[in-house]
Amino acid sequence: MSAAQPEAPTRRQRSDGARSRRAILEAAAGMATVDGLDRLSIGDLAAHIGMSKSGLYAHFRSKEELQLATIDTAEAIFDEAVVGPMRGAEPGLPAVLVLADSFLDHLRRRVFPGGCFFACASAEVQSRPGPVKERIAAFDRRWKARWIQAFEAAQRAGQLPVDEDLDQLFFELDAYLLYAHAAFAFRGDPAVLDRAGDAVRRRLRAEAA
Amino acid sequence: MSAAQPEAPTRRQRSDGARSRRAILEAAAGMATVDGLDRLSIGDLAAHIGMSKSGLYAHFRSKEELQLATIDTAEAIFDEAVVGPMRGAEPGLPAVLVLADSFLDHLRRRVFPGGCFFACASAEVQSRPGPVKERIAAFDRRWKARWIQAFEAAQRAGQLPVDEDLDQLFFELDAYLLYAHAAFAFRGDPAVLDRAGDAVRRRLRAEAA
Repeated sequence: MSAAQPEAPTRRQRSDGARSRRAILEAAAGMATVDGLDRLSIGDLAAHIGMSKSGLYAHFRSKEELQLATIDTAEAIFDEAVVGPMRGAEPGLPAVLVLADSFLDHLRRRVFPGGCFFACASAEVQSRPGPVKERIAAFDRRWKARWIQAFEAAQRAGQLPVDEDLDQLFFELDAYLLYAHAAFAFRGDPAVLDRAGDAVRRRLRAEAA
Repeated sequence: MSAAQPEAPTRRQRSDGARSRRAILEAAAGMATVDGLDRLSIGDLAAHIGMSKSGLYAHFRSKEELQLATIDTAEAIFDEAVVGPMRGAEPGLPAVLVLADSFLDHLRRRVFPGGCFFACASAEVQSRPGPVKERIAAFDRRWKARWIQAFEAAQRAGQLPVDEDLDQLFFELDAYLLYAHAAFAFRGDPAVLDRAGDAVRRRLRAEAA
């Protein structure tokens, strides 16, 4: 015990540091969907979470570092809320439907107050090439790959035609989800989330038929 | 002639004023799709168009007045580029296709450098209630009404089932267009515009069948 003493505070410090870093980044991810990723100033964020600016500077040396870390945290939150439920689903079309529904559900539950973090961020950085835009683009590629894998499983299970254009199918389904985000974020009417779920089902039914 | 002399400079001044107001607002509409409607500062805009700040203040007394006037000008530009071509089209499904294609074409031609002015503006103001958001919402209502009218003409012409859920059809078609905007603005690959055109045709064909 006594030998461990000198180390304990260091470990606790590190763990507190990791906890507060995560808390800062969760707050930042939520704020970014309302005020914009580019408005994430260390000063505003410090005020929002009741921390000193110098305390925040100990975590992030620049605004860009804060933005990139915020995107990574947003992806972890998104994956838990949207991709997580897919793991229990039967591969193929059932998994596709779970992915679509859990996306719509994360909008409904306002996991991020401004809607889909990545839709907000994409719209914001579309005209600004650089590491932040590249990080969003990398998320987009992983998101699309997840859908394509699920479609391919559906093809193997005979639930989708083997000659289905999967890029086109992804375009259409992802369009319903993006539109649900945009309309729900703008008007707050959850009926649009049901419409998106109907559109996904109609499109998949048309394909299976 | 000599009697007209005192009036001529006044008339010319007024006409120059109207011209420069339009030129300012066209520049502002384009800038808003790249930098954001909220970043439209009178100072930046003055620098962009090579006018003095005091000259600009003569046109717009506040940032909000500038934003609202910019939205109105953007709608005039949008109507000319996107809605104009519809006027020569046969009512019903042909007019629906012209509307979709001219929207995609206005993206392709980069009528606004950042894509669809109203998609950019909606995303930006979604969390900020007020006169600017209300002006965008009013555009959205007119845009939807235009589609619904065209669908109703298609129903009367027997090109769409009379029991078609027109709100759902609008949701799906407008989703393809919004997605085309977002993907083209983010990645610049025009292939996504063709995908959107294919999606619109596929959806209308499915319905007509």
